[in-house]
Amino acid sequence: MENNSSTLVLFSGDLDKAMAGLIIATGAAAMGKQVTMFFTFWGLNVLRKEQYVKTDKTLVERLFEKMMPRGPEKLGVSNMNYGGLGAWMMKKVMKKKNIATLHELMETARELDVKIIACAMSMDVLGITEAELIDGIEYAGVTTYLAATDESNHNLFI
Amino acid sequence: MENNSSTLVLFSGDLDKAMAGLIIATGAAAMGKQVTMFFTFWGLNVLRKEQYVKTDKTLVERLFEKMMPRGPEKLGVSNMNYGGLGAWMMKKVMKKKNIATLHELMETARELDVKIIACAMSMDVLGITEAELIDGIEYAGVTTYLAATDESNHNLFI
Amino acid sequence: MENNSSTLVLFSGDLDKAMAGLIIATGAAAMGKQVTMFFTFWGLNVLRKEQYVKTDKTLVERLFEKMMPRGPEKLGVSNMNYGGLGAWMMKKVMKKKNIATLHELMETARELDVKIIACAMSMDVLGITEAELIDGIEYAGVTTYLAATDESNHNLFI
Repeated sequence: MENNSSTLVLFSGDLDKAMAGLIIATGAAAMGKQVTMFFTFWGLNVLRKEQYVKTDKTLVERLFEKMMPRGPEKLGVSNMNYGGLGAWMMKKVMKKKNIATLHELMETARELDVKIIACAMSMDVLGITEAELIDGIEYAGVTTYLAATDESNHNLFI
Repeated sequence: MENNSSTLVLFSGDLDKAMAGLIIATGAAAMGKQVTMFFTFWGLNVLRKEQYVKTDKTLVERLFEKMMPRGPEKLGVSNMNYGGLGAWMMKKVMKKKNIATLHELMETARELDVKIIACAMSMDVLGITEAELIDGIEYAGVTTYLAATDESNHNLFI
Repeated sequence: MENNSSTLVLFSGDLDKAMAGLIIATGAAAMGKQVTMFFTFWGLNVLRKEQYVKTDKTLVERLFEKMMPRGPEKLGVSNMNYGGLGAWMMKKVMKKKNIATLHELMETARELDVKIIACAMSMDVLGITEAELIDGIEYAGVTTYLAATDESNHNLFI
């Protein structure tokens, strides 16, 4: 086992949890670690393109599509969201204090070669297609995630 | 330390989080790992028998019993549950696409010898008795969980 | 890497999750492990002093301050809180059964030399000042957290 790698499952689609995950991931990558992020269930919303993508879906899949936020800018916070007020407050403070936004953290992650994997099975459950997600990511299942944990002592579920 | 084992604390009683935990646990077990799942707090609801079990409880314990879901079929989702709509939607899609239910994942976990431990202390806090939980599981405390992590590089809290 | 250390990120400010984290942390420390707890985002509320501390803040920071619970006694539970009913029920049962409160667990953690770090960046985001947090803790960023994980096989995000 190498001590030099980290894996993070991002299950949550909350702005604050996604930020915490990306701050840890980019921090670890900046320290020279090999980092794998596995986006599953609501975490897939972090990977959604902001623009609408025309797709062919069942009614239930269409419902999920409408109900789920499209990309980092639309996410709520896990606590005190109050219909978006909490997320707005957090983004307002972060802008004022020059703290990187989730969108910027995602870009940094990619520059630092963090491996970004979308969970194929939960895409299937939520009816999310590859065309709806940002470019340049991988699609894989739990076996790929587990293989990455084999080489890592630092594995988080967020 | 062996690289060949995983531990998962299942704290959450949400359908989607329990599914994520079981998919990781059964995936790891299928790859030959020794997997320990420690069900604590709301995660204990995953282990509840579906049928009503007559017990002798205090008023507060009885309140917890009434308020908490009884087994995998009754769990809500962590996000967009809307009084059960989200859970219903998720189960509908999964059935259509032949994705294993939580109940089936639990059976697979047991066939693959995943060690299932119910946290004795949180049973005490929530007033849950052994008679209310499914058969063939172990009852233990945090020391037993921590001993299992000693042999594992892959430890998640869900 | 040493097998003899644990790290826990406490992101959540929920009573039940904080309790789970502290039970694991104090259990590990009692078994002779070096334990580091990194309190970030809502987890910082666990470290807040109960009494009001006069501070100079912006309007948004003041809003966060008013909306967030001050210390262990004020936290809600992650599930079935119902405006504090769930937290009240849980504390009532714990008292009756002589289970350690969150406040007592924090004291035990300090007696067992659990390293308690408040995340400087999320203090900045939420506008929390050092004067508002309990004494005798450290202030640091993600790099300090990541350095601690280097020496640990057991790393949780709660």
